[in-house]
Amino acid sequence: MKVRPLGDRIVIKRIEVEETTKSGIVLPGAAKEKPQEAKVVAVGPGTAEIKMEVKEGDRVLFSKYAGNEVKLDGIDYTILKQEDILAVLE
Amino acid sequence: MKVRPLGDRIVIKRIEVEETTKSGIVLPGAAKEKPQEAKVVAVGPGTAEIKMEVKEGDRVLFSKYAGNEVKLDGIDYTILKQEDILAVLE
Amino acid sequence: MKVRPLGDRIVIKRIEVEETTKSGIVLPGAAKEKPQEAKVVAVGPGTAEIKMEVKEGDRVLFSKYAGNEVKLDGIDYTILKQEDILAVLE
Amino acid sequence: MKVRPLGDRIVIKRIEVEETTKSGIVLPGAAKEKPQEAKVVAVGPGTAEIKMEVKEGDRVLFSKYAGNEVKLDGIDYTILKQEDILAVLE
Amino acid sequence: MKVRPLGDRIVIKRIEVEETTKSGIVLPGAAKEKPQEAKVVAVGPGTAEIKMEVKEGDRVLFSKYAGNEVKLDGIDYTILKQEDILAVLE
Amino acid sequence: MKVRPLGDRIVIKRIEVEETTKSGIVLPGAAKEKPQEAKVVAVGPGTAEIKMEVKEGDRVLFSKYAGNEVKLDGIDYTILKQEDILAVLE
Amino acid sequence: MKVRPLGDRIVIKRIEVEETTKSGIVLPGAAKEKPQEAKVVAVGPGTAEIKMEVKEGDRVLFSKYAGNEVKLDGIDYTILKQEDILAVLE
Repeated sequence: MKVRPLGDRIVIKRIEVEETTKSGIVLPGAAKEKPQEAKVVAVGPGTAEIKMEVKEGDRVLFSKYAGNEVKLDGIDYTILKQEDILAVLE
Repeated sequence: MKVRPLGDRIVIKRIEVEETTKSGIVLPGAAKEKPQEAKVVAVGPGTAEIKMEVKEGDRVLFSKYAGNEVKLDGIDYTILKQEDILAVLE
Repeated sequence: MKVRPLGDRIVIKRIEVEETTKSGIVLPGAAKEKPQEAKVVAVGPGTAEIKMEVKEGDRVLFSKYAGNEVKLDGIDYTILKQEDILAVLE
Repeated sequence: MKVRPLGDRIVIKRIEVEETTKSGIVLPGAAKEKPQEAKVVAVGPGTAEIKMEVKEGDRVLFSKYAGNEVKLDGIDYTILKQEDILAVLE
Repeated sequence: MKVRPLGDRIVIKRIEVEETTKSGIVLPGAAKEKPQEAKVVAVGPGTAEIKMEVKEGDRVLFSKYAGNEVKLDGIDYTILKQEDILAVLE
Repeated sequence: MKVRPLGDRIVIKRIEVEETTKSGIVLPGAAKEKPQEAKVVAVGPGTAEIKMEVKEGDRVLFSKYAGNEVKLDGIDYTILKQEDILAVLE
Repeated sequence: MKVRPLGDRIVIKRIEVEETTKSGIVLPGAAKEKPQEAKVVAVGPGTAEIKMEVKEGDRVLFSKYAGNEVKLDGIDYTILKQEDILAVLE
């Protein structure tokens, strides 16, 4: 089964990594959140306003609490909007 | 009786599935919600800004709490906006 | 006395029906509301952004708590915006 | 003294009527408000986005709590925006 | 010293009047506020979206709590945006 | 060290003045704030929507709580957006 | 590993400085925050609306609580949007 995201949505699969974002700096409350790594699995067509800047296979950093989790054929994915992707790792 | 959705609205019929979205990851509060599967029954004409990307018969994932429920000729449907559809399953 | 709605507003008259929207699904809190049926009585001219998609005589589903109620010549009507109309029943 | 409203504002004078909007339907909380009748006294020039649809002398229904009340030469008026006018009565 | 307002801002000087806006109607809570009279002292150039509709010397009604008060050369003024001016009195 | 503001931002240096904005009028709660005087030190290039209306050396009134304070070479400055500047004093 | 920010995002590395922004002025509550210095490490391509005004190597002032912190190859970075950059230091 394949999943085709709509509009500016993207399907990603989280990469479990060892605490890469841990820093010694004290974070005041919930003002800051730590992003997480993932691999892009599928990319929507974009919208009139939003051109897609990532492609299948890209390794990305995304906002941990963004998007919706889904399980397809027993595997967990996250579907989120491109604006929740912070950067591509190259 | 047929139902014709207006604008960027879509009529769907939920598909009852066995806990496909259940994941072992701990979700912090209500920050994440689990989407649900449905079959597209009718699609609105779209608007000046929003082009419709799904068609009748598509199997889709949608935000569980989105839209309005209606019962027509004894069958339950949900009417929601295309932005509440996350992805098409192919 | 005739009522002419402005902009994208529509005047409707509710149709009392037997619990068509009753479903067995448990609704979590106020996250979902049940729409109601009505007959379109008058349609505004639309706006630069919004083209009217319903016409006088259409049978429609609308969000129950939307709009304003008025009594004209002893009859109850609701005046609401087209965006509060979910679908036309055909 | 004459009052010239700016932009999409309209000056109206309330018409005291016998409970025209009274309906037997139970309104849940403040979700619904009853509109009131008024006569249009002066109409602003409109804006780039909003074309005026009412004219001096029109009898209109408006949202009771909309706008600002003013007393000019001893008479009470309400100044509101066209979007707070629901319909014209003809 | 002269004050030149920016964009769609206007400098006004309040006119103390005898309770012109006092009405016998009971106002529910803070849903309604009474506007106040003022004389226009200086008018900004407007913006790409907003064309100025008042001119120096105009007598206007404005929302009492709008804008910022300033004292220049010992005189109190209010600087507000044109959208806070309800009407011109002629 | 020179500071170059981005977009529609402006760098200003406060002018300490004797209570120019003090007025006898009672201000209801925090509905009104007293603006403060400053000298413009640097002006950003503006944006596609916002044309800059002030220039280096202008004496301006600005919203006291707007912007961010910075200390450069031992001197305190405020960096704010042009929309937080109320008027130029001439 | 290189990080490529999307859209109008920018990757910066904080510069630890001695209390440059400390001022004697009393700040009322959280109405004001002190910006911090950083060096620009990578700049996104911008968007249809936002043209990038900073470049790699620029020394900038940014809103301390803006953006997301990430650790790459053991070094802490912040990814934020250009609108959270106040000014470039030259």
